[in-house]
Amino acid sequence: MSFQNPVFIPGPTNIPESLRKACDMPTIDHRSPLFGQILHPARAGVRAVLKSETAEIFIFPSTGTGGWETALTNTLSAGDGVLAARNGMFSHRWIDMCQRHGLAVEVVETPWGEGLPADRYEEILAADTHHRIKAVLATHNETATGVRSDIAAVRRALDKAGHPALLFVDGVSSIGSMDFRFDEWRVDVAVTGSQKGFMLPAGLAIVGFSAKAMEATATGTLPRTFFDVHDMARGYANNAYPYTPAVGLMNGLNQACRMLLDEGLENVFARHHRIAEGVRAAVHAWGLELCAASPDLYSDTVSAIRTPEGFNATDIVTHAASKYGVAFGVGLGEVAGKVFRIGHLGSLTDVMTLSGIATAEMCMADLGLDIGLGSGVAAAQEYFRSHSATSLLAAA
Amino acid sequence: MSFQNPVFIPGPTNIPESLRKACDMPTIDHRSPLFGQILHPARAGVRAVLKSETAEIFIFPSTGTGGWETALTNTLSAGDGVLAARNGMFSHRWIDMCQRHGLAVEVVETPWGEGLPADRYEEILAADTHHRIKAVLATHNETATGVRSDIAAVRRALDKAGHPALLFVDGVSSIGSMDFRFDEWRVDVAVTGSQKGFMLPAGLAIVGFSAKAMEATATGTLPRTFFDVHDMARGYANNAYPYTPAVGLMNGLNQACRMLLDEGLENVFARHHRIAEGVRAAVHAWGLELCAASPDLYSDTVSAIRTPEGFNATDIVTHAASKYGVAFGVGLGEVAGKVFRIGHLGSLTDVMTLSGIATAEMCMADLGLDIGLGSGVAAAQEYFRSHSATSLLAAA
Amino acid sequence: MSFQNPVFIPGPTNIPESLRKACDMPTIDHRSPLFGQILHPARAGVRAVLKSETAEIFIFPSTGTGGWETALTNTLSAGDGVLAARNGMFSHRWIDMCQRHGLAVEVVETPWGEGLPADRYEEILAADTHHRIKAVLATHNETATGVRSDIAAVRRALDKAGHPALLFVDGVSSIGSMDFRFDEWRVDVAVTGSQKGFMLPAGLAIVGFSAKAMEATATGTLPRTFFDVHDMARGYANNAYPYTPAVGLMNGLNQACRMLLDEGLENVFARHHRIAEGVRAAVHAWGLELCAASPDLYSDTVSAIRTPEGFNATDIVTHAASKYGVAFGVGLGEVAGKVFRIGHLGSLTDVMTLSGIATAEMCMADLGLDIGLGSGVAAAQEYFRSHSATSLLAAA
Amino acid sequence: MSFQNPVFIPGPTNIPESLRKACDMPTIDHRSPLFGQILHPARAGVRAVLKSETAEIFIFPSTGTGGWETALTNTLSAGDGVLAARNGMFSHRWIDMCQRHGLAVEVVETPWGEGLPADRYEEILAADTHHRIKAVLATHNETATGVRSDIAAVRRALDKAGHPALLFVDGVSSIGSMDFRFDEWRVDVAVTGSQKGFMLPAGLAIVGFSAKAMEATATGTLPRTFFDVHDMARGYANNAYPYTPAVGLMNGLNQACRMLLDEGLENVFARHHRIAEGVRAAVHAWGLELCAASPDLYSDTVSAIRTPEGFNATDIVTHAASKYGVAFGVGLGEVAGKVFRIGHLGSLTDVMTLSGIATAEMCMADLGLDIGLGSGVAAAQEYFRSHSATSLLAAA
Repeated sequence: MSFQNPVFIPGPTNIPESLRKACDMPTIDHRSPLFGQILHPARAGVRAVLKSETAEIFIFPSTGTGGWETALTNTLSAGDGVLAARNGMFSHRWIDMCQRHGLAVEVVETPWGEGLPADRYEEILAADTHHRIKAVLATHNETATGVRSDIAAVRRALDKAGHPALLFVDGVSSIGSMDFRFDEWRVDVAVTGSQKGFMLPAGLAIVGFSAKAMEATATGTLPRTFFDVHDMARGYANNAYPYTPAVGLMNGLNQACRMLLDEGLENVFARHHRIAEGVRAAVHAWGLELCAASPDLYSDTVSAIRTPEGFNATDIVTHAASKYGVAFGVGLGEVAGKVFRIGHLGSLTDVMTLSGIATAEMCMADLGLDIGLGSGVAAAQEYFRSHSATSLLAAA
Repeated sequence: MSFQNPVFIPGPTNIPESLRKACDMPTIDHRSPLFGQILHPARAGVRAVLKSETAEIFIFPSTGTGGWETALTNTLSAGDGVLAARNGMFSHRWIDMCQRHGLAVEVVETPWGEGLPADRYEEILAADTHHRIKAVLATHNETATGVRSDIAAVRRALDKAGHPALLFVDGVSSIGSMDFRFDEWRVDVAVTGSQKGFMLPAGLAIVGFSAKAMEATATGTLPRTFFDVHDMARGYANNAYPYTPAVGLMNGLNQACRMLLDEGLENVFARHHRIAEGVRAAVHAWGLELCAASPDLYSDTVSAIRTPEGFNATDIVTHAASKYGVAFGVGLGEVAGKVFRIGHLGSLTDVMTLSGIATAEMCMADLGLDIGLGSGVAAAQEYFRSHSATSLLAAA
Repeated sequence: MSFQNPVFIPGPTNIPESLRKACDMPTIDHRSPLFGQILHPARAGVRAVLKSETAEIFIFPSTGTGGWETALTNTLSAGDGVLAARNGMFSHRWIDMCQRHGLAVEVVETPWGEGLPADRYEEILAADTHHRIKAVLATHNETATGVRSDIAAVRRALDKAGHPALLFVDGVSSIGSMDFRFDEWRVDVAVTGSQKGFMLPAGLAIVGFSAKAMEATATGTLPRTFFDVHDMARGYANNAYPYTPAVGLMNGLNQACRMLLDEGLENVFARHHRIAEGVRAAVHAWGLELCAASPDLYSDTVSAIRTPEGFNATDIVTHAASKYGVAFGVGLGEVAGKVFRIGHLGSLTDVMTLSGIATAEMCMADLGLDIGLGSGVAAAQEYFRSHSATSLLAAA
Repeated sequence: MSFQNPVFIPGPTNIPESLRKACDMPTIDHRSPLFGQILHPARAGVRAVLKSETAEIFIFPSTGTGGWETALTNTLSAGDGVLAARNGMFSHRWIDMCQRHGLAVEVVETPWGEGLPADRYEEILAADTHHRIKAVLATHNETATGVRSDIAAVRRALDKAGHPALLFVDGVSSIGSMDFRFDEWRVDVAVTGSQKGFMLPAGLAIVGFSAKAMEATATGTLPRTFFDVHDMARGYANNAYPYTPAVGLMNGLNQACRMLLDEGLENVFARHHRIAEGVRAAVHAWGLELCAASPDLYSDTVSAIRTPEGFNATDIVTHAASKYGVAFGVGLGEVAGKVFRIGHLGSLTDVMTLSGIATAEMCMADLGLDIGLGSGVAAAQEYFRSHSATSLLAAA
């Protein structure tokens, strides 16, 4: 098993050295005050990354999927209405989870490659005069299609419709990498994981609850124990946990937040934007198109790249892994075989990015696509040359 | 934060050097064949540690609590009957989980310090002629009281009553340290976590399902997504996972199983028994009693030690941490303040154990208990001298 | 301090993950048999990497410079003649060391960029009828100029002249990366360090002595203690060391040898050649020249690249570090400012190499050189596409 | 290979977690400014640990033995007189090194177990009216016998004799653990290594030179290159090194100094004294004697314990390793078989120390010595109870 090349999957990301070390921690007594010295700063750090003053932050030994379940089961009851749009594999899965938990999901089918249809949301919400809809789901960044949706617009849709539904946002592949404004957007539950913008191994579900979401926990009757936020909150109040916490990962999370906040969130976002623009310059130079339908939807954490009709995009991923030892992402669901994905979030530099672009070029050429070797690299180099200050993480 | 002294909590345990390194792994693509090279041997290793030929092994990024939830939500439906005994904090919590999920729990209240009442189980099961009871819960080792129950006896109770209920066993603090016979005892779901006998950081729920339990998943209607074993099984069949796996921990689990199996399970159990006997020799020399009511109930992974009437046992734990930097376990629930616990499972040697015993002695003396300094140490030394071959983990 | 990008200095190299872990070792008793389990396989591994059956291998906590001193002080006496050619900074420094130790060095001044002048050696040796020359120095790979010399030719020169001088070879930047034949070339002392072909941190001098060199230790009177090979040999015979060994590094060395031998030395050399050819294809595409005067001299571990007259090559190195966070090597001594160096030895893949080439391009363009962006990358891609099987180190 | 138990050898010591991580560092370019950020603080840290304002600190990839050679070869010339006392294995070896380098050593034979004979030094120096003696060697702490000598007294001897000889002090097993006053004692060269008070792996020779020692380098003609302090100083002035530095270890040294200085040197010394007193209380309880002839000579870093006549003390060490997996030190040279040694320096707590004492008790009892199990432990417990504040290293 070789770890020489960086990975270019849209999470888990490359892990900075300092975070590897923060996670690799000997056992401490998680019932001792030492644990509080990790828990509380980690929660405060996440809150700051969410741009929130007041969100209640909960950290579960789980993943983003567990975070989704936390949002639903703590606030909703069987039969409750949920509004969601399906525009990619991850929004699809969250909808599926709602259905398995007996929620009545109003699904807005949306072309994969498009963003969340805020206008359509507004119409549906306005029509829901009995407020059967209790929650609106919004996938901030569809990892499957590389589409970033406009959460502020979803909030406006709710406001214009005068609808009291909770706003749940899947920020798994956006939080910590792209601008996320929990308070300004009045998000009720934000969900993420450790393995994306926080640059850690997978293993933590990280959720933020607004005061309104906390209130909803009093009425939600879906069964829950592992993901119960009250047990969690009661534990936190005593420097403790309802079960055994993943201490090392939480120590890593604490350190990751410090790294992001020390760099400055706007700098972090600018860094992701610059690297994404480099990738997009390469895609343009190759004469290919992104899955995302328009530039305002372009994700700064992952690019899903459409390959020509009749070509199996998954072959690029398989070939890159077997011939060059490089991991890209395959297309999922409706876009399986039609796109391949370059993840460009977390701990990545211009220089690392160029190696990914160069590898994609070799693969496409190997597989018979008409791609000029060095063409994408040159486009990205040109962009990086004029936009880079050194893009290194200080403690990486 | 000092990591110089070993911990003596009943999990998470001291982590062997080789497992620290196995867990501390750079990112790989969890959708690539590399992941299968970790996943499948890890599952096979767990199966062997369970002494099973056929158990379906599922590994969730979660904890033992999530394993309990996996057992319940995949096989049962709201209103189903469950038989359980409450003889400690962990059996209490599992019962509480059942109740939160709408199960009808028949609770056999049992003195804390006693084992599971197999005879009483048999009576109740025999009386349940309509088979309203769908599952019997059995906590193999009550971590709160240091009591190991007789699971074979519980199985016999089911058999004698001719009752078809599923047998769910919490083996969190027994599996990998004390004898556990999934097949022989016809366990239907066994639950454990990564941070006990497997000597890893917390972060994995590890469960084994019998064929009968797998069948029950077809009828169980409790809502579940994160803990759905079908999604998990479907993933495994494709070298994959329904969401992002905790790859490093799973790599550690694979390695941990190899360590245990290379040492030989019977040797592992004998090692735990010897170290536990050393601790018990010390307790005897101190003139104190175990919480466990009789020697057949003594746990080889944790000893809960009763302190004299009027003395707050928790002070020992607080004092040990603040003055000597050593972590013991406090009493929980009904035995809070009445016992303190010495965890002696996982990666521990005779020599490390002596330092824990010596520390407990100093603490008790400091706090005014009439304990002869060196008395417990001498008793344990005597035991270890005559029973030890070197007790080191080869790769620790 | 960021560790995100690979380094492209000609040593220390990028360290494979598995070697990081092998070196990062808790303390063991170096006077216990455990140490022998590291020492002896490490020495056997080095012997195999040298392609020797009989060389005595000595490992000092030191560096290649200490290895040079080991060669000289154990075998020679003040006033002894030494024959050496100065064709780069490292041959220069070894000559300087001889002079400081009172040896009479006959220096053959050789243009930097040329190889060792075997013909001239032969003439001088033939003329040395009194055998005042006791040792011939040969720098196998001049790290400063990227020139690999022909050691077999030096051996032939000695043989043709019928001269009994010892043959000392500096293989610091060749051994473990390029073909080295201790026995076939009848090398008397070979010198290397841990931080080049062995891919470890600096900290070990590694030397091999022939039987003839061992004999010479009986007559050499230069003072020595730390570097005395007899003390070392006496220690080894008792699983021990004359002082405290650098156990972790030696454990790493043992593991490094296993990696190289498992891959197969010829495969290791082919891998280095392929990557070097990729770099050279890029240099050619840029329209630049190597410092090495002719293709037969091209080093497979480092390329020193001449920049146009009037341009300060060192600026590339400074700029790459400050703007892109990438380390190249500066020119040293006579070629300072005239060349920059790309190290391409040790743990490097095609993909990593492309990122180095791409960075060099950006730097040269930034600094006003007329270099087509992507041009060198494309040339290297073309080469790698047609010559690569996956070039990953199995355990890296 | 098990790393579960602490080691009780007098170096290398147990390595604190934070120092393991500081040493385990990816490759950086040691010719870049990054290296200066490690080098200069490390040197300043060592200077502070030496209690010096002005010492020139040199750090070699080597060991304490290399530090001795640095002292000699940089300042002395063949035939120079050196005054030294032989009172243990390490003073013996330094004398041997002098002789090999052609120095005229006046050896004061001193019983092993005694300290340096300052009075005798004074007589000899006073008699040396021609100042043939150029240097006085003083082993601060004889690791072989557990004897700490009075360096201030040696300085007074020089002063009283009005003798200009340089004062060279071997502080390998004292510096960083016991009080060392470079400036106050007017030490000219102090020598230590990384693996003792600095708690790091072996691999660094660390030396401090006074201004007077630096002056002597102008006249010393012993050959030297690897250990030449001028090359080193010239490198430092350019953030550089004369050859490849052991960067990770130096990073560890920097961090180790910060740990020691943050704790406070007097606190560090007090901690070592307390732990040593605990060990000595145990020795007394066992009815055994230390090799050190009187309490003023007791070392706070290592205790050499005499075993009864006719008993082979080395058996304890062998038995402890094979039966209990614990490393003690054997007797060396004149006291081989007569003493065994408990190292108690560096990263050690009261609790860890008790496990070492308990192990020694078991071994002695196993081997037939009349030692009461628990007797030494109880004596040490009593001492620790009344003298301990928590003795944990903050960052260990």
